[in-house]
Amino acid sequence: MTAAAALVWRDIGRIRSLSPLVHNITNYVVMNNTANALLSIGASPVMAHAVDEVEEMVGLASALVLNIGTLSAPWVNAMRVAGRAAHAREIPIVVDPVGSGATRYRTDTIAALLTEFAPTVIRGNASEIRSLVSHDASTRGVDSTHASHDALAAARQLAERYACVVSVSGEVDLIVDRSRVAYVRNGCALMSRVTGMGCTASALTGAFTAVSDSAFEGAVAAMATNGIAGEMAEETSRGPGTFQSAFLDALYVMDAPQVAHRLRVDGL
Amino acid sequence: MTAAAALVWRDIGRIRSLSPLVHNITNYVVMNNTANALLSIGASPVMAHAVDEVEEMVGLASALVLNIGTLSAPWVNAMRVAGRAAHAREIPIVVDPVGSGATRYRTDTIAALLTEFAPTVIRGNASEIRSLVSHDASTRGVDSTHASHDALAAARQLAERYACVVSVSGEVDLIVDRSRVAYVRNGCALMSRVTGMGCTASALTGAFTAVSDSAFEGAVAAMATNGIAGEMAEETSRGPGTFQSAFLDALYVMDAPQVAHRLRVDGL
Amino acid sequence: MTAAAALVWRDIGRIRSLSPLVHNITNYVVMNNTANALLSIGASPVMAHAVDEVEEMVGLASALVLNIGTLSAPWVNAMRVAGRAAHAREIPIVVDPVGSGATRYRTDTIAALLTEFAPTVIRGNASEIRSLVSHDASTRGVDSTHASHDALAAARQLAERYACVVSVSGEVDLIVDRSRVAYVRNGCALMSRVTGMGCTASALTGAFTAVSDSAFEGAVAAMATNGIAGEMAEETSRGPGTFQSAFLDALYVMDAPQVAHRLRVDGL
Repeated sequence: MTAAAALVWRDIGRIRSLSPLVHNITNYVVMNNTANALLSIGASPVMAHAVDEVEEMVGLASALVLNIGTLSAPWVNAMRVAGRAAHAREIPIVVDPVGSGATRYRTDTIAALLTEFAPTVIRGNASEIRSLVSHDASTRGVDSTHASHDALAAARQLAERYACVVSVSGEVDLIVDRSRVAYVRNGCALMSRVTGMGCTASALTGAFTAVSDSAFEGAVAAMATNGIAGEMAEETSRGPGTFQSAFLDALYVMDAPQVAHRLRVDGL
Repeated sequence: MTAAAALVWRDIGRIRSLSPLVHNITNYVVMNNTANALLSIGASPVMAHAVDEVEEMVGLASALVLNIGTLSAPWVNAMRVAGRAAHAREIPIVVDPVGSGATRYRTDTIAALLTEFAPTVIRGNASEIRSLVSHDASTRGVDSTHASHDALAAARQLAERYACVVSVSGEVDLIVDRSRVAYVRNGCALMSRVTGMGCTASALTGAFTAVSDSAFEGAVAAMATNGIAGEMAEETSRGPGTFQSAFLDALYVMDAPQVAHRLRVDGL
Repeated sequence: MTAAAALVWRDIGRIRSLSPLVHNITNYVVMNNTANALLSIGASPVMAHAVDEVEEMVGLASALVLNIGTLSAPWVNAMRVAGRAAHAREIPIVVDPVGSGATRYRTDTIAALLTEFAPTVIRGNASEIRSLVSHDASTRGVDSTHASHDALAAARQLAERYACVVSVSGEVDLIVDRSRVAYVRNGCALMSRVTGMGCTASALTGAFTAVSDSAFEGAVAAMATNGIAGEMAEETSRGPGTFQSAFLDALYVMDAPQVAHRLRVDGL
């Protein structure tokens, strides 16, 4: 087993033994999937968005995941309050800017949120990441129109600006911090035909950064685990429907030989 | 291959090559299913309901689908704004009056929405369609208590009133405009034991009308594709759970021979 | 077939023939699952939360299920109105205090709701049930940190206070009223790795109490059916993903020999 595989496998083991509570304020479309992905890998999900309770719920959590996929004013307000509370407690905060660049409301909301607290990881597709640094970037709905390598400069700029990790999903995933770049080449084509696979990657990033030695390592391990589970699932599925069930099964049964055999990461 | 099968297959091909963006303002229960059905057939779904962004999101979309399944005042307001924007852009608007007739709030909401913009297709079950023209029609929750053929007169009346296509799902689906009637005899019994199959049909109607030569053809092709996928899924499933996965797989793998072999449409 | 199995099987038969309409005001995470579980067992689900319509929708329903999993002020208000209407109509009301004890908002909300109407069944995990009678009980997110037998005293106290049935899920499920205790030993380990299995149990409790001779019998039959479906599903699944599909299939295909063979209930 390579050092990278040992690290990924160690973090999976930590999630399974510690079962970190991951508090998600996320979108309606994917809540069920992301809760199930977190349970399948061994974490404990909670979804709570009422401003009356998010601060207290953050107090129980080991990580906070904020996802603007179906945003509206009351939810954004809860994200603001929860983000500040997580920042004060120094637990990891993962921000998924779903659809940033598609509408001004999304782009502005993310910009405003990021002035309220320091994100640990920003995780999005190439179009979303570019939209956070450039006003000429455009996003078509919530799907990327750019390859992930197009986003390297933007990711580096964001990582510098917010002193955070930036994780860009694509055919090859890019994970950068202020000094490093890692590439994750795991994954499969069917993942782009299932809604919320990016949101699942963000939720897993919450679970991994809750237990990992560094946010960079956690972000890389999350994308690798996500991609490996996708490869395992594709082998036993006949389309996007059976793929989804097989993906959760894969997170649950993933073992050291699978990680050692499949991991394709550079820069970890 | 019959002319009808050639038309359905051509529209499937157009969706797969053009990947139309379908903007959905729909209910919480089915968001995940409908997004996945759209991805499986080859379209690109986006869910957005904040009044702050729906107008801009409609500006990117090739079709708008409005579904009142879990309606509340802010969502209805967003539907109104989005519907007007879609009407101004002349993209197809599909309206699914889920549960119309069950409560006065649903019946009145649909009536009010339809004064704000011209629908391209109204798609519902027989009870819902009847409730839109007759005050003595009743709906028991969200499931139909009438056969689709009972709704022919009501569908014709609606098609005339709104100069639109009306698509009535049932054991036999009826699709009418002001001068034509088509019957789709595809589908299977298990579809009534899975939540949101009607909502999926509406979402697919959005994708098909985004690419079809006419709204009538698109509405028929959508119901046929939905029914054929149901038949394919039933053959490989053991109940409503495995059926759902198999249904998405079927949308993804559907090919010309399947369409040619299974299509049972009159009037296209 | 034992008398207990005959009773469970009779209630399943009643659901399948009567198809009771179960009105759910529940959380975003599980709406799809619970609607599908209700359809799979033969009931008819409806989800509606707008204060403009819940009273009227309750008027059509045979049971009401209130679940605070992703509560916020407008939803709690709808629960209050719907609960009062159900109380006036004397249909069963099932309350699921998801996450009670995790935040003050949840604990206080449940306490306030239970002053507005008399619940028929309170169904939760051990941590949640304890939190309703003891301020030192704590819940970690939405997962139980206590075994169900720890909750017996609390369940009895609640049953006395509200003159209702209390159903506590766990490795062994406890169902108590003011004079009886039943134990359901059906179920499987994978059920704790799938989100919303408790919420599904609550929804099924709504369907069973809508048709059963007593709330106590209905609550027991629901937990038994839930557990038997879990056992059937585990035998054909490879992890939490395939389990979910198999669980719905099991509810749909469950027959008298399966119930007779698997049922492990004491006290019914």
